[in-house]
Amino acid sequence: MRIYNLGIDIGGTSIKFGLFDLEGNLLDVWTLKTNKANRGSHILPEIAELIRNKVSIDQIRGIGFGVPGPVAKNLVFPCVNLGWGQKDLVSEFKILLNDENVLVRVANDANLAAAGEIYKGVANGYVNAFMITLGTGIGGGVIIDGRVVDGINGVAGEIGHTHVDDLFNLDCNCGKKGCLETVSSATGIVRLAKEFLKLSDKPSKLRKFDDFSAKKVIDLAKEGDSLAVEVINKSMEYLAITLAKVSYVINPDIFIIGGGISNAGNFIIKKIADYYYPLVKPFISHTHFEIATLGNEAGMYGACYLIK
Amino acid sequence: MRIYNLGIDIGGTSIKFGLFDLEGNLLDVWTLKTNKANRGSHILPEIAELIRNKVSIDQIRGIGFGVPGPVAKNLVFPCVNLGWGQKDLVSEFKILLNDENVLVRVANDANLAAAGEIYKGVANGYVNAFMITLGTGIGGGVIIDGRVVDGINGVAGEIGHTHVDDLFNLDCNCGKKGCLETVSSATGIVRLAKEFLKLSDKPSKLRKFDDFSAKKVIDLAKEGDSLAVEVINKSMEYLAITLAKVSYVINPDIFIIGGGISNAGNFIIKKIADYYYPLVKPFISHTHFEIATLGNEAGMYGACYLIK
Repeated sequence: MRIYNLGIDIGGTSIKFGLFDLEGNLLDVWTLKTNKANRGSHILPEIAELIRNKVSIDQIRGIGFGVPGPVAKNLVFPCVNLGWGQKDLVSEFKILLNDENVLVRVANDANLAAAGEIYKGVANGYVNAFMITLGTGIGGGVIIDGRVVDGINGVAGEIGHTHVDDLFNLDCNCGKKGCLETVSSATGIVRLAKEFLKLSDKPSKLRKFDDFSAKKVIDLAKEGDSLAVEVINKSMEYLAITLAKVSYVINPDIFIIGGGISNAGNFIIKKIADYYYPLVKPFISHTHFEIATLGNEAGMYGACYLIK
Repeated sequence: MRIYNLGIDIGGTSIKFGLFDLEGNLLDVWTLKTNKANRGSHILPEIAELIRNKVSIDQIRGIGFGVPGPVAKNLVFPCVNLGWGQKDLVSEFKILLNDENVLVRVANDANLAAAGEIYKGVANGYVNAFMITLGTGIGGGVIIDGRVVDGINGVAGEIGHTHVDDLFNLDCNCGKKGCLETVSSATGIVRLAKEFLKLSDKPSKLRKFDDFSAKKVIDLAKEGDSLAVEVINKSMEYLAITLAKVSYVINPDIFIIGGGISNAGNFIIKKIADYYYPLVKPFISHTHFEIATLGNEAGMYGACYLIK
């Protein structure tokens, strides 16, 4: 009988199931729409049902879950994106499986993305890593000594809400102003670009658009549009300032940059590094920057890493 | 035959030896002047000699060392205060002991102060902690999952060199400007007070002195001297801003405040907390602040924790 691990990444829109062998090789991927009806009460039963339909429960050694909200010591705090209140996911899921022997663990998805990259991605072989996911928002994940760090309120790594910008001091979803997320996420880059367009009459191809994406700003910056370059420089400077502060706390081996913005590759890595190193001299020289390689699969790999 | 552990805190002026039983009870303390002649080459031999004079080597289970400089994976990086270049302290000391079986480990002294407080001090029972030592400089120590975090360059926890002050932007020993150490250490409080005295004509008892200590500023602030209050408020606000950033990285259970400034007790704890909590809402509520309790013995306890 073959034995498997499952890494399950529960997102606000869909749930991704990774079927792994015990060496962490991804054998199969299944997906399920996230059913948020009734405050998300169908989510775990539907996951259990899909698993039963695919494999026999006694073929499963462990199941790791990633969720889009704070988790501490396997307890899920209220998870707005899923409709969940505080939840003891591990106990609930073991009851649904009707099997006490399956190892079940859960962690925050941004932390698991970092774990995934350590396990099978660009940071394989490292034990201390910090991953920044630059998407609509900013996620962060911390791995120390090869272990996922949750934090007492489950928000370790959430550097998107550190204050960094006094210049524009834009409103953040969290209720504060000037958070990293307001200037260095995909939405932040767009907001920053709109501020720069207001502040000067400098010509820019961006002026041709009523609205535009972060990708558009990056593409124009790559082409040399000087206003777009200023926007990306400022955005990545703010990120570097924040990562310098992270460095003085955990002095990681590696920073992993993921999320949509990381598709810009070396173009942004170079900018971040150029701003970062002067801020950490003469103390830090070894930490380096890499683009994440697992993309949307990082969460599944990380969830599997939890129970490997 | 009784078996012991030794926790040895090597400082720039003196070396403190703690003799511990295997439960971590401190049985005896010895001290030795730090002999920095010949680039510190006598330090380890003199430590080995003192140990031999006090106990039989076969009574020793382990020896932990704290050193005043960066350490990563038991390798000591150049340690200016001792005259040392890069040093494999563990191997060197095992040769001096002529005993391969003794467990020998080394870490940075500020990280070990944190470990000491976890082991036998105010943070006993916690597993994730950040300690700030506010002395002449600022030291910082990180404990995650009960383990000391070194960092790849051995500078995990060194938040004294994160940039925080754009207002005065004072020169720091590290070559940068506006580091936390320039405004929140004992020397930083004095520097900040002198800046405040220059900036206004506000009456203050501080004006009676040509020079004064951080303790004088704190004492006057406690008495209600309004300029001294402003100085301490600004200094502790900067500390809180930096600790908020630490919180978004590792979200610790507890912040431990040590060093000379911590003698001000609840007076400064309250100020730090008042500035801190608004900066971390709505994410963090559980982390709290405590004054360190082990004083100068924290390093010895922490060094013992390394090999317990």
